[in-house]
Amino acid sequence: MLLAKVVGTVVSTQKDERLQGMKFLVLQRLDINGKLENGYVVAVDAVGAGIGEVVMYASGSSARQTVLTDKRACDAVIMGIVDTWEVDGQVKYNKGG
Amino acid sequence: MLLAKVVGTVVSTQKDERLQGMKFLVLQRLDINGKLENGYVVAVDAVGAGIGEVVMYASGSSARQTVLTDKRACDAVIMGIVDTWEVDGQVKYNKGG
Amino acid sequence: MLLAKVVGTVVSTQKDERLQGMKFLVLQRLDINGKLENGYVVAVDAVGAGIGEVVMYASGSSARQTVLTDKRACDAVIMGIVDTWEVDGQVKYNKGG
Amino acid sequence: MLLAKVVGTVVSTQKDERLQGMKFLVLQRLDINGKLENGYVVAVDAVGAGIGEVVMYASGSSARQTVLTDKRACDAVIMGIVDTWEVDGQVKYNKGG
Amino acid sequence: MLLAKVVGTVVSTQKDERLQGMKFLVLQRLDINGKLENGYVVAVDAVGAGIGEVVMYASGSSARQTVLTDKRACDAVIMGIVDTWEVDGQVKYNKGG
Repeated sequence: MLLAKVVGTVVSTQKDERLQGMKFLVLQRLDINGKLENGYVVAVDAVGAGIGEVVMYASGSSARQTVLTDKRACDAVIMGIVDTWEVDGQVKYNKGG
Repeated sequence: MLLAKVVGTVVSTQKDERLQGMKFLVLQRLDINGKLENGYVVAVDAVGAGIGEVVMYASGSSARQTVLTDKRACDAVIMGIVDTWEVDGQVKYNKGG
Repeated sequence: MLLAKVVGTVVSTQKDERLQGMKFLVLQRLDINGKLENGYVVAVDAVGAGIGEVVMYASGSSARQTVLTDKRACDAVIMGIVDTWEVDGQVKYNKGG
Repeated sequence: MLLAKVVGTVVSTQKDERLQGMKFLVLQRLDINGKLENGYVVAVDAVGAGIGEVVMYASGSSARQTVLTDKRACDAVIMGIVDTWEVDGQVKYNKGG
Repeated sequence: MLLAKVVGTVVSTQKDERLQGMKFLVLQRLDINGKLENGYVVAVDAVGAGIGEVVMYASGSSARQTVLTDKRACDAVIMGIVDTWEVDGQVKYNKGG
């Protein structure tokens, strides 16, 4: 999994029929210290994440291992909203803070 | 998923038998702001996309999760035509606009 | 899928038993304009491609979705010989030409 | 598999239901000589690894091939704690040493 | 598949139970001309490769398509020992030579 910030949305009316009703969010990747990187990915949201939140997402076939994305043409899923992460004993991100 | 622009077509007569009848499109990747990048991919079109349109595509095994691509040697599929996408409250692309 | 040119062969006598009889070709990747790139991949040939031909190949689990490669330890397969491809209205490659 | 050092933890309360109870660790990748690289990944721990330990992790669908991660939206798993590794006859890492 | 040289070994006592008895080798990647690159991967050996040998390895789910690695948390497998490879009519590597 990688860490990312939810920064936007994608609207697509004409899409594969099994993807109807899905919410597509634009995620901008974060480096290990919480700094925004250039890379992005469009992911389906399986946990009710909102704009501005820091999340974990899973890629590839693992992105289909949620009730919502099972058997869907989806290669990235938000599977967790991050409360906090810590590296080398330092808090790099704290949702409350 | 990643965002890309449909920029071309690939014609292949001699191909794996399960791929007969598929339409192969050349996609040029877009960065998070909608600028064309160097990277490209050849994808099967599952949604009736045309040259010049902005699309989302899924890679890997997820590219086989459409009726059209099921059990095919296909590792990239266009699964949505993008109407609009927004990042940090700014519209980065608008099909109508 | 990506576009590549068949530039060589790999011979391997001592290999996994399910891979006996397979033909391994060295593919050098092409950029969107048909220029050779540094990247390469060794792929199983499912379509009878020859040295010098331009092909499409699929990677990952999709590389096992041919009769030949089913259930094999193969992560790249040539699934189409390219006749022609076109980008932005310009022919970038033409087998006949 | 790649080699990495366990450098941190991620806490996520609101996550996909099948991921409840999992421990998410931040891994910083190591190069072939054991030097820390910039790349990181968040992995589920299947072997009881602790902060500071050197581990091997598997990515993609292979990350779901443990009892713990089976059918979970998990694309990286720690599947081994490294005791020692050796390259070109030189010990690059020794847990005891 | 990619070409690599077997340059080392990894010892891991505490590992996922399904991986008991596996041999983990460190592979350093080779470019198309046979020159060592910086990239490496730790792979399970399915063909009896030894230090110094040039091999082909498969990644991702394809790495589980051998009798040895089936259903294991293994994302890279050596599936062939290379005898020789040729690019543009030139021998780039010859095991005997």
